[in-house]
Amino acid sequence: MTKILALTGGVGGAKLALGLAQILSPEQLLFAVNTGDDFEHLGLHISPDIDSLTYALAQQNNTETGWGRAGETWNFIETLGSLGGEDWFRLGDKDLALHTVRSQMLGSGMSLTEATAHIAQHMGIQHTIAPMSDDPVRTIVHCDQGDLAFQHYFVRERCEPKVSGFSFSGIHQARLNPLLKSWLNDCDGVIICPSNPFVSVDPLLQLDGFGEALKNLPVVAVSPIVGGIAIKGPAAKMLQEMNMPATAVAVANHYQGLIDGFVVDAEDKKLIEQINVPTISTPSVMVTLQHRIDLAKACVDFLMTLSAP
Amino acid sequence: MTKILALTGGVGGAKLALGLAQILSPEQLLFAVNTGDDFEHLGLHISPDIDSLTYALAQQNNTETGWGRAGETWNFIETLGSLGGEDWFRLGDKDLALHTVRSQMLGSGMSLTEATAHIAQHMGIQHTIAPMSDDPVRTIVHCDQGDLAFQHYFVRERCEPKVSGFSFSGIHQARLNPLLKSWLNDCDGVIICPSNPFVSVDPLLQLDGFGEALKNLPVVAVSPIVGGIAIKGPAAKMLQEMNMPATAVAVANHYQGLIDGFVVDAEDKKLIEQINVPTISTPSVMVTLQHRIDLAKACVDFLMTLSAP
Repeated sequence: MTKILALTGGVGGAKLALGLAQILSPEQLLFAVNTGDDFEHLGLHISPDIDSLTYALAQQNNTETGWGRAGETWNFIETLGSLGGEDWFRLGDKDLALHTVRSQMLGSGMSLTEATAHIAQHMGIQHTIAPMSDDPVRTIVHCDQGDLAFQHYFVRERCEPKVSGFSFSGIHQARLNPLLKSWLNDCDGVIICPSNPFVSVDPLLQLDGFGEALKNLPVVAVSPIVGGIAIKGPAAKMLQEMNMPATAVAVANHYQGLIDGFVVDAEDKKLIEQINVPTISTPSVMVTLQHRIDLAKACVDFLMTLSAP
Repeated sequence: MTKILALTGGVGGAKLALGLAQILSPEQLLFAVNTGDDFEHLGLHISPDIDSLTYALAQQNNTETGWGRAGETWNFIETLGSLGGEDWFRLGDKDLALHTVRSQMLGSGMSLTEATAHIAQHMGIQHTIAPMSDDPVRTIVHCDQGDLAFQHYFVRERCEPKVSGFSFSGIHQARLNPLLKSWLNDCDGVIICPSNPFVSVDPLLQLDGFGEALKNLPVVAVSPIVGGIAIKGPAAKMLQEMNMPATAVAVANHYQGLIDGFVVDAEDKKLIEQINVPTISTPSVMVTLQHRIDLAKACVDFLMTLSAP
């Protein structure tokens, strides 16, 4: 039996994650999810990347906004604003319920892993979502406005500040989720979903020996950059601001020493010769469920060729 | 200039409160509000009686449900239930925003009085809403299921347990709101709105010398019981369970020694002879805004006759 670990961050990664979940059973597939984007807001513990994956796997993601939960309403946040409350983080009425349930559970002493499992179960999700750690890690964005907490950079400032680097507060104290540790013991390979390499994947790679452990396994990464733009989010902008070309090649270089294979979009086929690990090109812009499944199959097949003896 | 203090609890009292606010300026009228119903729930500080008054004065009360905020939606609480959260207290999406703003303010060190003023101001309310105390007082219902926190009795158990009495946890430590202390110095009279005498008004009367102070002023109370039934809430049921007749007479007797005048509904005119303080009868079932204003005028006029030298 194939056992795969998929690393994922936000909405882009969650699309491929759903494709993988359609072709691999819960015994064959575990998700390791970034928690560096987590933050405390309005008394709630918010885990944006866990939630993006949860909503995607439950097929309850909001296709109108591109983030958040399907069929969402906004009466809470609009009323909050009218009462002088902090309304820059657009919490939907339904989304808010999820944060409340999680916050109540954490407050009662449960771990983030347990709260995540409870929520996933209530949303009909079969696969296990493993937060990278139950300990707090918080992404700090170093930028021309100084140091910003990730959500302040990402949502409040709409990714406008010019980025010079990142750090992950708590990363040296945080322990890897035991579910991940145990999965690595007999894992056949790793897929890095098309998530932001700097803010979605790097926190995972820097955590408690996790990046080192992955080096002993076949690892395939999927480029979140297609034709010079990020399908979703600020990855391309970040690359440019840190003086790297906004291309799939730069992403492959970023993962150098870790990955054994790379996946670029069909549109970027011409870049393959610039990438110094085995690379395939395949359609990677996932609009429909079938696109997600097709890319997932291509990634798994590719990973299997790399892990063959 | 007439200066009046109005004591009020839940939705019934808030109806008369709106009438009073229509005929008396913010310099002439202050509201003293029960906080014994307050509770902590889902990490929020909820003040049902303050909110009933706030929504009523802003004319944002929900006339469909009879409680809560107008134009409410229920996506939060329905989603919370679907995720296994505690959904017996029906928090509307808009209402939730108010609780969140208050909880954030209290968490930042502001008093309940300050948070209440902030919210009232943002809802366009001119009059001052004075929580009876900034210190916690919590109503406990003694009943055939043992001791229940008020909201557990009132909402979760839908007032079904048979009541034997009440106590107010924290009542001996709580300090009267300084706004009320100061208003009493040159107040001309007091109106007790048609609120539940046991759980809405008694906490006020038992607080930090407040009831004693009122004895030096002309006080008029309006019966919340009309024709043997409570217009709203469990007052009639409570009277019966504590072996009192569910009539306006029992309410007047409850306030004996405190009130100088009593107001019963026109329907209960025949009861006047059983009440041993000056009593008037007037329509007191407030459906329209005009009903509220008419009853307010009748109460103020009556109070003025009692306070005349």
